[in-house]
Amino acid sequence: MTKRIAPGGRIGILGGGQLGRMLALAAAEMGFSTHIYCPEETSPAAEVATHTARGAYEDETELAKFAAQVDVITYEFENVPAHTAEFLSTLKPVRPGVAALATAQDRLVEKDFMRSNGIATAPYAQIDSLEDLTQALHEIGTPAILKTRRFGYDGKGQTKIDALVDAENAWQIIGKQPAILEGFVPFAREISVLVARNTNGDLAAFEPGENIHRNHILHTTTVPAAIDASLVAYAMKIAEQIAAKLDYVGIMGVEFFHVATNETTPLVVNEIAPRVHNSGHWTQDACQTSQFEQHIRAICNWPLGPTKRLSDVIMTNLIGNDIDEWAALLSEENTTLHMYNKADARPGRKMGHINQLNTRKS
Amino acid sequence: MTKRIAPGGRIGILGGGQLGRMLALAAAEMGFSTHIYCPEETSPAAEVATHTARGAYEDETELAKFAAQVDVITYEFENVPAHTAEFLSTLKPVRPGVAALATAQDRLVEKDFMRSNGIATAPYAQIDSLEDLTQALHEIGTPAILKTRRFGYDGKGQTKIDALVDAENAWQIIGKQPAILEGFVPFAREISVLVARNTNGDLAAFEPGENIHRNHILHTTTVPAAIDASLVAYAMKIAEQIAAKLDYVGIMGVEFFHVATNETTPLVVNEIAPRVHNSGHWTQDACQTSQFEQHIRAICNWPLGPTKRLSDVIMTNLIGNDIDEWAALLSEENTTLHMYNKADARPGRKMGHINQLNTRKS
Repeated sequence: MTKRIAPGGRIGILGGGQLGRMLALAAAEMGFSTHIYCPEETSPAAEVATHTARGAYEDETELAKFAAQVDVITYEFENVPAHTAEFLSTLKPVRPGVAALATAQDRLVEKDFMRSNGIATAPYAQIDSLEDLTQALHEIGTPAILKTRRFGYDGKGQTKIDALVDAENAWQIIGKQPAILEGFVPFAREISVLVARNTNGDLAAFEPGENIHRNHILHTTTVPAAIDASLVAYAMKIAEQIAAKLDYVGIMGVEFFHVATNETTPLVVNEIAPRVHNSGHWTQDACQTSQFEQHIRAICNWPLGPTKRLSDVIMTNLIGNDIDEWAALLSEENTTLHMYNKADARPGRKMGHINQLNTRKS
Repeated sequence: MTKRIAPGGRIGILGGGQLGRMLALAAAEMGFSTHIYCPEETSPAAEVATHTARGAYEDETELAKFAAQVDVITYEFENVPAHTAEFLSTLKPVRPGVAALATAQDRLVEKDFMRSNGIATAPYAQIDSLEDLTQALHEIGTPAILKTRRFGYDGKGQTKIDALVDAENAWQIIGKQPAILEGFVPFAREISVLVARNTNGDLAAFEPGENIHRNHILHTTTVPAAIDASLVAYAMKIAEQIAAKLDYVGIMGVEFFHVATNETTPLVVNEIAPRVHNSGHWTQDACQTSQFEQHIRAICNWPLGPTKRLSDVIMTNLIGNDIDEWAALLSEENTTLHMYNKADARPGRKMGHINQLNTRKS
């Protein structure tokens, strides 16, 4: 059995954003010191961390210094360069591990992983050329979504194809990069499950939340999702299965499409995120254990905390100028504000979020 | 109306202990940056703060630099030198204010304040000499407790007098300092209320917890306390009354003795603490708003958060080597660990605490 990292241990986190900030706060509450590594001069995470190392993700000298100061290394974003993760893992445990990260970073590898484990996804095809794309469009049909294999998030690196004649344009739009074509899934809703696995192999999933996006950015997560109890259990089981098969350690987000019209395969996996996830912020106030505490528990090989939901909840992101509503929001009953202390409320920038408890979706 | 301090504001905290640490964590979650001022080179609070200034509490140059960097100043211990608080209050708002601090720092001023507001206390007398003590013992009787007026905590600076002949010895023990003699109250239990007041005058009290001490250090706080609902309401009302009369801003702890045998005056105030208080740690997991968030809300003049208790709870301090039980404790269901990341588990040192939810006192 892997040894537990005791309180007083040092948690290394790659990335300085709000997810790193909330991970550091959770780790501090548990008695750990926190070490952030990021290239930015100032960052939300550095504000609350015990130590911050500023460096490029390619700088092995700085990375080695960072590794020497910590007991375990995790990350708050999935686009950690593969070489960075591999290099660090020669020095200290990197959790989630290099293999899980590689799977989550590449949409094709991710889809192939699901297929090989019998987990339903949208129909898809590997695209390396315009010819591939044209042929795949014939097979999969339209509408379909062309996505770069790597570095996509919040709707970036993807474009919808409504008709065969748009193929060349779409290929241009995504920069002729290695891609996959995904058949369009006529889904009723998107749900997501946060699942944790520790180094001991224990598994614990939170109940699915239902996600609504605006401008390709998560707007709200509502829990419970408007799906049958059997699908709740099924989604949690699939998420646990994925975590186990990947030999995953930490919290993972698993996004599903709910295809209400498909009785045999009502849930298909859209994608996985090898980190704490925006759609899991509701756990901060509606569960005894937040996703952030759970991630720290998992990577330190602690027993996982209880995942039972204690209240209905709606999480709403505060994007850009939404943050100006803070004064009105904090007068609302059962509303908890979480703010990231970012100076500049640019459009599209995640500035904070709120959790509203005991509420029903309107 | 005093202006609200918006997220992004800078919270100054005097003192680097675990209370400062948990205040800083709560403030960070709300989007504030945190600035600790303390003389120690390393401290639990500095580990999680945005900035830390190291300086003596008498160093006006360093204090002025600190004040220039923050929007409001608070403190995590009540023995802030009066001159320090007064000096800082000429530069930035100090909350709780200088007058409330002065009252809480001096047991005689505190008792006189209660008496002048018709709030029951133990019988007491001012002691400035052995003659005063001998006379007071004749009037109040034995057993009685001789306490220094200032700088007492965790049973320090006080001694019990069982017979008149022990007067001189007791006077020696407390160092012949300005003191008060308090009549011994045959109390059934000690309870405490955490009450908040913001600059707007809004008041909100948490329900009383029942405190058990070991070696003069708080061991457990159990909520609900084993007292009638009418006493719960009465204790909360008295705490709110004290906060209002003191023009108090922030969280204050009010300790009461419950004298079960006295039907006319079943609750007497023992003392007040002008800060977040160990006996309020249960709010971290059993309420939507913790005492730490509530304190930050109050000093920033935000609306106060809801204080309703959502679960039965027992808070247990981990003192000295108790901390070694962490691995066993975190496997217990419904148990939340809070650790302070102190390196050296000296006897009597507060290393962390746990909250056990939905539990009943055994």
